[in-house]
Amino acid sequence: MVDRLPRASELNTEEKAALTSGLSFWESKGIERAGIPSIYLTDGPHGVRKQREGGDHLGIGDSVPATCFPPAVALGSSWDPELLESVGRALGAEAQTEKVGVLLGPGINIKRSPLCGRNFEYLSEDPILSGRLGAALVNGLQSQGVGTSLKHFAANNQETDRLRVSADIDERPLREIYLRGFQHVVEHAQPWTVMCSYNRINGVYASENPWLLTRVLRDEWGFDGLVVSDWGAVNDRVAALVAGLDLEMPSTNGVTDAELVAAVADGSLDESVLDIAADRMIDLVQKVVDHQDADASYDQDAHHALAREVAARSIVLLKNEGVLPLQPDAAGTIAVIGEFARTPRYQGAGSSQIVPTRLDNALDEISALASEATVSFAPGYVLDDAGADGAAPSAETLTAEAVALAQTADDVLVFLGLPAEDESEGFDREHIELPAAQTALLEAVLGASDRVVVVLSNGGVVRLSGWADRAAAIVEGWLLGQAGGGAVADVLFGAVNPSGRLAESIPLRLEDTPAFLNFPGESGHVRYGEGLFVGYRDYDARDAAVSFPFGHGLSYTTFEFSGLGVTGSDAGIDVTLTVSNTGDRDGREVVQVYVAVPGSSVSRPARELKGFANVAVAAGASEQVTIAIPNEDLAYYDIERARWVVEGGEYVVSVGASSRDLRASASATLDGDAGLATLTAESTLGEWLKHPVGGAILSGALAQMGDSAMAGMLADPSLMRMVESMPLNRVAAFPGSPVTSEQLDQLVAAANGAAVPA
Amino acid sequence: MVDRLPRASELNTEEKAALTSGLSFWESKGIERAGIPSIYLTDGPHGVRKQREGGDHLGIGDSVPATCFPPAVALGSSWDPELLESVGRALGAEAQTEKVGVLLGPGINIKRSPLCGRNFEYLSEDPILSGRLGAALVNGLQSQGVGTSLKHFAANNQETDRLRVSADIDERPLREIYLRGFQHVVEHAQPWTVMCSYNRINGVYASENPWLLTRVLRDEWGFDGLVVSDWGAVNDRVAALVAGLDLEMPSTNGVTDAELVAAVADGSLDESVLDIAADRMIDLVQKVVDHQDADASYDQDAHHALAREVAARSIVLLKNEGVLPLQPDAAGTIAVIGEFARTPRYQGAGSSQIVPTRLDNALDEISALASEATVSFAPGYVLDDAGADGAAPSAETLTAEAVALAQTADDVLVFLGLPAEDESEGFDREHIELPAAQTALLEAVLGASDRVVVVLSNGGVVRLSGWADRAAAIVEGWLLGQAGGGAVADVLFGAVNPSGRLAESIPLRLEDTPAFLNFPGESGHVRYGEGLFVGYRDYDARDAAVSFPFGHGLSYTTFEFSGLGVTGSDAGIDVTLTVSNTGDRDGREVVQVYVAVPGSSVSRPARELKGFANVAVAAGASEQVTIAIPNEDLAYYDIERARWVVEGGEYVVSVGASSRDLRASASATLDGDAGLATLTAESTLGEWLKHPVGGAILSGALAQMGDSAMAGMLADPSLMRMVESMPLNRVAAFPGSPVTSEQLDQLVAAANGAAVPA
Repeated sequence: MVDRLPRASELNTEEKAALTSGLSFWESKGIERAGIPSIYLTDGPHGVRKQREGGDHLGIGDSVPATCFPPAVALGSSWDPELLESVGRALGAEAQTEKVGVLLGPGINIKRSPLCGRNFEYLSEDPILSGRLGAALVNGLQSQGVGTSLKHFAANNQETDRLRVSADIDERPLREIYLRGFQHVVEHAQPWTVMCSYNRINGVYASENPWLLTRVLRDEWGFDGLVVSDWGAVNDRVAALVAGLDLEMPSTNGVTDAELVAAVADGSLDESVLDIAADRMIDLVQKVVDHQDADASYDQDAHHALAREVAARSIVLLKNEGVLPLQPDAAGTIAVIGEFARTPRYQGAGSSQIVPTRLDNALDEISALASEATVSFAPGYVLDDAGADGAAPSAETLTAEAVALAQTADDVLVFLGLPAEDESEGFDREHIELPAAQTALLEAVLGASDRVVVVLSNGGVVRLSGWADRAAAIVEGWLLGQAGGGAVADVLFGAVNPSGRLAESIPLRLEDTPAFLNFPGESGHVRYGEGLFVGYRDYDARDAAVSFPFGHGLSYTTFEFSGLGVTGSDAGIDVTLTVSNTGDRDGREVVQVYVAVPGSSVSRPARELKGFANVAVAAGASEQVTIAIPNEDLAYYDIERARWVVEGGEYVVSVGASSRDLRASASATLDGDAGLATLTAESTLGEWLKHPVGGAILSGALAQMGDSAMAGMLADPSLMRMVESMPLNRVAAFPGSPVTSEQLDQLVAAANGAAVPA
Repeated sequence: MVDRLPRASELNTEEKAALTSGLSFWESKGIERAGIPSIYLTDGPHGVRKQREGGDHLGIGDSVPATCFPPAVALGSSWDPELLESVGRALGAEAQTEKVGVLLGPGINIKRSPLCGRNFEYLSEDPILSGRLGAALVNGLQSQGVGTSLKHFAANNQETDRLRVSADIDERPLREIYLRGFQHVVEHAQPWTVMCSYNRINGVYASENPWLLTRVLRDEWGFDGLVVSDWGAVNDRVAALVAGLDLEMPSTNGVTDAELVAAVADGSLDESVLDIAADRMIDLVQKVVDHQDADASYDQDAHHALAREVAARSIVLLKNEGVLPLQPDAAGTIAVIGEFARTPRYQGAGSSQIVPTRLDNALDEISALASEATVSFAPGYVLDDAGADGAAPSAETLTAEAVALAQTADDVLVFLGLPAEDESEGFDREHIELPAAQTALLEAVLGASDRVVVVLSNGGVVRLSGWADRAAAIVEGWLLGQAGGGAVADVLFGAVNPSGRLAESIPLRLEDTPAFLNFPGESGHVRYGEGLFVGYRDYDARDAAVSFPFGHGLSYTTFEFSGLGVTGSDAGIDVTLTVSNTGDRDGREVVQVYVAVPGSSVSRPARELKGFANVAVAAGASEQVTIAIPNEDLAYYDIERARWVVEGGEYVVSVGASSRDLRASASATLDGDAGLATLTAESTLGEWLKHPVGGAILSGALAQMGDSAMAGMLADPSLMRMVESMPLNRVAAFPGSPVTSEQLDQLVAAANGAAVPA
């Protein structure tokens, strides 16, 4: 614990401007005179990427070795906040060891399109899942005295033109899909920092968006930390500061510091605004120094073991026609096919790229676990340009070798996936296909064996629909970090009973994805035309076929749900049920709670994930599960009232094992907090007549007018259906109408002034 | 010919305000002192709906008898501008007879969703088709000295909340889809009036939208007529006048006239603005009186015959497995099933509803044409509430009777369709299903005969996917006007060889339609999230299955296309081909030209209709067809340049018989008028390097800087791919960058100042 640092009021303008921008690529500026040290911020989120001294600016591929945990795409599939919290604690220990004050993560942007090049760094297509898992990671990291940077705030859902593009999003999807996860993490885990994104939102840069950085983030959500720019995201430092951007990174060699000083000098910037940012920076530095542990170290072996455990828990068994698990003590032959088994793809490219402390591969780990069987390997295809120089064998030779192996093997494991150059920060994919050489190999192998297990390595979703029906089993391994090889072996042999569930839908075709026709936009704009209907929200609303639905994942045991209880209260909905493991193997089930609001006054998805529980159940045992769904998660954002509203009425609660495998449903009725709609002269005839107060008032007034044209209209149902969408004031203006504008005013006053009936 | 009317400058303020609003529901105000008469405007568009004196305000169902021509849904399916022009001439003659100065039509709004309750009043889901056909109708009507009112301007694509809802549309789809048809009609047919719609567009009422009514309509398109409000569409008369709304209809009993006078008096409205509107009104009155024909009359029999001809040309033969045409001179039995055969549904409900001069039904007309066969009839179902009082037979009885008839008949004609109450102006449909009683009947009849011909009567698309594969033939009759019964008989017996083509796609399911998840909006807004991808533009881009594609329609003969020639010029693309009738029956083919721009820099549909020709070809003969596609139809709207742009490069031109039955393709290369992109400091590294001028300049400048970090970056392809989306000024601001802001300015000046290479 050091002494308290000075406040901004004790610094001069130049010092405050300096304090709120970078010293270098990774360090903030200290103010030596005032005893404020520089702090170190560095890339995450699935490892500590501390640049080695003397590296290039981005430092990619040249950082201090650190444990490469599974990237977010895998973590998201675990559906287990406790697991993510344990990863956070380990990352915190490593950051402390490397003297890193703030680790730049987690990234919780919504996977709007499978094409986003950075989807491997994000958790899910669903904001509730992203929010829960993101908060756990933040809590774990910050429990070790290391700050997090919740990113990329906000609506940074593509790489194409990411430094300029305006994400044009209507407020409901913006609030309910793209901001909801951020809101949850801020409100429930208070990250030390939030990182604003590069892009514009509805025309305004995130870095200079006062609505986003101040009104929503601070005033509505209560964020009390610091907002840091994504590296190079500041367009106009003065505008950014005013909007609520506290710290610009990296260094601009003092150029923008001088702009701040000049703006204060010429009166265009109120110095108190700079004071606020400087004080927030001082608060962050204070937290970092308060929590610094000079003696920190970590156990690389233990972290590697944790990485293996987490990776195994993140694997999703998509399909299994009785071929898995393999028997570790069985004799026989196992054919391992595919270069990825020997040369793993285990993380994505870009700023998150870790130099791992060690690296397992699946081939060695399978050989280690298969104590009695003979394991043989054929690469099947070459990665990168390894074959371009003519030294590598031809595709024909590689295929023939693989087929020969498959024909005589008892079990055939084919490792396929996306090459590293196919997905990266900085650009988006243009398709979701596996390389043609790999699918050709797979076709040949499928012709040679009916026990083909496909193991996938990919950061973004790939199309499976060409062959998924013919594979005996499919193991979706995503990118599993440095210990992924062992984790895959653990799942294949049943040392770990798989419990990963899809955090994103696997579509049949790219053309079926909701953003297909408006991704990635053009001319500086991308219209989120699908609105709320992202991922399963679209597929389920359209009843459209997918390869594997959101939430799907198999186990080596079976579970049954029983005794569903659903209770509404002023706080939300409480869900209870019993999960029974009806198989002969211990396992974990992810109970998913989906909610529909059939009578909603606004557009809603057919069902939305509103809660979940990850439950370990021993073979033959049962566990009682309780899931509380708070009002904040049930609310929709009402653009007319400009607030979150919990509608009164029926909520249908379904528990299931995917968005399309609903096992039981029950209803709760909530009072809600919508209140009575306000009637105006512009409210329609239909709105007036349906209103619990206004209807009687209008009908009474019209009756007094006798046989007027309007009364005649109201008496004719088919005419009424045609005119009920007319605002009352327009009807009143028609020739022959008996209603004067004074009478209109009286009607409005009466409708809104009357006591609400009980 | 009367004398010239006075100008606005000769009227006082009160008179000008009075002149620019209605006297009654259907008449404008005359100014007796100045000799300016009142004129009569009345509903169309497929007949003259002149309210009988003493009727209710809307006058629906109580108007002077007039020929009920096929509504727009049928006319659109004719794909024949000449035919629409002939309808226009006939409407003009009837309007002259009834002393109507302006007929309120045509309606050319795009069919965005099949749910729109007023789709029967609109022509197509495609703007080129809507524009061509709309212009023909305007030309025909105005050739008779009767004014038209092109409506509903604009983006009035739904009935739900139509008086308030804001159609939120990005500018490219607004320009390229929703306004393009209006633009064509204005530029090529100069309607005397344009009717502004009720709704808002991007937040601003159409009636008070200066961008729409003045900048686009008058300044860009050159409209020199009058803008009239839809009846009751004015929200604020003063704002509307300033925006470019000239005439408010109907009367507001002088209330808004007084608002104008007061605004002039208090100086908030410049009187010259009122003068402009009053002069436009005087110009319109002048045109009406100049063209009035006091002796006009029309031949009801001839117009009925025309209505039959047009209806027959509008029928679309969707499917025919050899059962049609029926042989008029064959003996045998024909079962006619379905109440609609006897009680036709021939027009939609709402303001366009005509009291016909007479009314044919299909049953009588079939009986008349089937000279040798025995025609028997079973109603199969009841319409409306005819059966509710218990007097009507039960569904079981009706079905049994129909099945008995079908079992023994040689040919079975089943008439199905939407009841009148299912679709109307004023509300939207909530599904696209036929009534369950009708589909149940059809199932029973399909079980009794394998020669079932289904004849449909519907204003909006209905789902056919439950049974279409089992019907032997499907005749889409839409709503065919008063002579539709005879027209159906003509097509069934081959007296007319069908040549109608779908002007809108028939989807497999409502859930497959592009606007499914954002129609009709909520909270006063509807987001056109599908953008450009309306109708076939969506299905074709997604390669999604439909029941029947846009442009589809069968004939009783066969056609072949040959000798496709495609020539690009400065004016556009000229297409030539030969159409041969390879069957033994005279017929008409609709040659459709679809254009793709494979190298486009902006998002484009897979193909778009850009021209068509409706060609009569005698059996065994060939016709040479020439279709000119002008640049205006090839251009896209560039939101950065804020103008229409014809891109340079390859245009792939396909000729076909539907959007999915392309018979031949060829390419043309156009120079285009895009010009060279302007580079700025905010242009990305990638944009700089790819630019024909800027690329060399930037590379040269970087080379001079020696081994800088940026030069190193450029030399690494994978790093380059990650950073090429960075704006040059952001890269330049990074620590270590050698580029100063002065150098940046010099680069920009050099790139844009340099001569464009030849």
